[in-house]
Amino acid sequence: MKHGGDLTEAMARHGGAWQWLDLSTGINPWPWPITPVADDAWQRLPSRADEAALLEAARAAYAVPAETSIVAAAGTQSLIQWLPYLAAPGAVAIVGPTYSEHAAAWRNAGREVIAIDQLCELPREVRHAVIVNPNNPDGRIVDCAGLAAAAATLQARGGWLVIDEAFADVAPAISAVALCADLPIVILRSFGKFYGLGGLRLGFAVAAPAIADRISTAIGPWSCSGPAQRIGAAALRDQAWAEATRAALTQQAAKLDVILHAAGLMLAGGTTLYRLTRHRDALRIHAALARQQIWCRSFDWADDLLRFGLPPDDAARDRLAAALG
Amino acid sequence: MKHGGDLTEAMARHGGAWQWLDLSTGINPWPWPITPVADDAWQRLPSRADEAALLEAARAAYAVPAETSIVAAAGTQSLIQWLPYLAAPGAVAIVGPTYSEHAAAWRNAGREVIAIDQLCELPREVRHAVIVNPNNPDGRIVDCAGLAAAAATLQARGGWLVIDEAFADVAPAISAVALCADLPIVILRSFGKFYGLGGLRLGFAVAAPAIADRISTAIGPWSCSGPAQRIGAAALRDQAWAEATRAALTQQAAKLDVILHAAGLMLAGGTTLYRLTRHRDALRIHAALARQQIWCRSFDWADDLLRFGLPPDDAARDRLAAALG
Repeated sequence: MKHGGDLTEAMARHGGAWQWLDLSTGINPWPWPITPVADDAWQRLPSRADEAALLEAARAAYAVPAETSIVAAAGTQSLIQWLPYLAAPGAVAIVGPTYSEHAAAWRNAGREVIAIDQLCELPREVRHAVIVNPNNPDGRIVDCAGLAAAAATLQARGGWLVIDEAFADVAPAISAVALCADLPIVILRSFGKFYGLGGLRLGFAVAAPAIADRISTAIGPWSCSGPAQRIGAAALRDQAWAEATRAALTQQAAKLDVILHAAGLMLAGGTTLYRLTRHRDALRIHAALARQQIWCRSFDWADDLLRFGLPPDDAARDRLAAALG
Repeated sequence: MKHGGDLTEAMARHGGAWQWLDLSTGINPWPWPITPVADDAWQRLPSRADEAALLEAARAAYAVPAETSIVAAAGTQSLIQWLPYLAAPGAVAIVGPTYSEHAAAWRNAGREVIAIDQLCELPREVRHAVIVNPNNPDGRIVDCAGLAAAAATLQARGGWLVIDEAFADVAPAISAVALCADLPIVILRSFGKFYGLGGLRLGFAVAAPAIADRISTAIGPWSCSGPAQRIGAAALRDQAWAEATRAALTQQAAKLDVILHAAGLMLAGGTTLYRLTRHRDALRIHAALARQQIWCRSFDWADDLLRFGLPPDDAARDRLAAALG
């Protein structure tokens, strides 16, 4: 399975007779509390006023400086799909292992993709680079000095540094948004993961105006749904919720770690939205959990790693502990 | 103003103190009645099972044969943006005047765009063609024989015929879906207009598998929101609503025609979702209506045409009549 997120495939393979516990994603299981959306958001084309309100809220939430642009899209995946068609010709280096859709999108667009282990090891022949920061699944973080150095190298080649900050909400200080004004950096911010609303399809690109305009022109008008604009704007303005959620996720991740550790799964990285663990029998454990209708994430590039999302409540945590026991 | 649909711009220009009557779009003002969407559609990534259910409903609604593929996207606008990046190199002919976003998308992708009056007048130098059928704003319809002939001509050049059937729901018999199996035709079906849910962002491309796969690979996974999948599937299955709505729109368009005719606006075309009218003082009438907070559609390529969407109720129709009187 390419993605961990599609529980319907797990159900098809392992049966769906009773209740699955889906721990295969990095989506916050305690979503921002949505309220019903007014009729006009469903019925009318999304207006420029609604888009402006959304972007204003996103600018504040992500600390985007005035001289830097921000573009909204129907999920960062749609931006990942577009970037290989908009970047200047040339090969791309992708720091990995990481979220597989970056390499897939660049390859599908006909680009040469070179996998690298560290951003500081940029091959001479690449024009662009992609890094997920913090990385998925291992949570590795490259600091702003390292990002700026790589971006400066790519700038001299007329290339872009794409920084996928899909999980940066849990640690906003690591964001490289402040670098975009002077360097050819495209930052992707996912809304659905931290806010627990993956079905809403909302994400953003942050970049200098010339790059952002190219992206905005490519994706065209009305890229976000009306409900995504309304809910996204309200959620992004809710700083109290974001603060409390960051603290709660830290506690929940610690509780999950206790269970994983007790089962002999060694913590190998992650963020507070998912935990990467190592065990020499990882695939056997994955299969055993699946037979008990618990779905976690395995990787085709490592037979000793499993990634777990946060159990949504005590019962789910107890169930995971029992299944691992 | 490039589009008629953005009432917030009209309000900014003409004041927004009281209630605007927005007749600038071709969106059905009597939407399919949505019911609240289950929490998981907002929270989880859209699943393949939900996508399959949506596509099955769309296949039935649009009469797509088994050997032809269908792809869902976050509105046909997003497909319009992608097609110029996916079609083989070469110029495109666009039958116009028509919806301006087709030409904009091909030009932004660096393509030569040649405006033509009739699909049967394809210039020798074009590889692709785009036609909106029925056309927006004049409602012109090219029959399947004419579409097939053009597609065969383009097939010999390795090109595509894009048929935007954004308003075909009001007259399903004109659809060219049955031609896709044998000809390089991409049909775009908009969900939001006929179903009155433009903010949902849902649309489809129908094409032979090889073309559809190229589109599907480009737009990537999770292109539609969870609510769009659920609501779209339910609405597209509701054939009774669709039948009743086609009949109701016909009646409503006739009622609107009476008012427009009484004001000296001569019917110049349209569909039952919008009416195109001609008047030598069209721009003066547009301005007078705007001062009375009624927003209809004018065109930068014709100073004698106005397009009106359907007033949503008797009060709105009376208000339009009084404002025109």
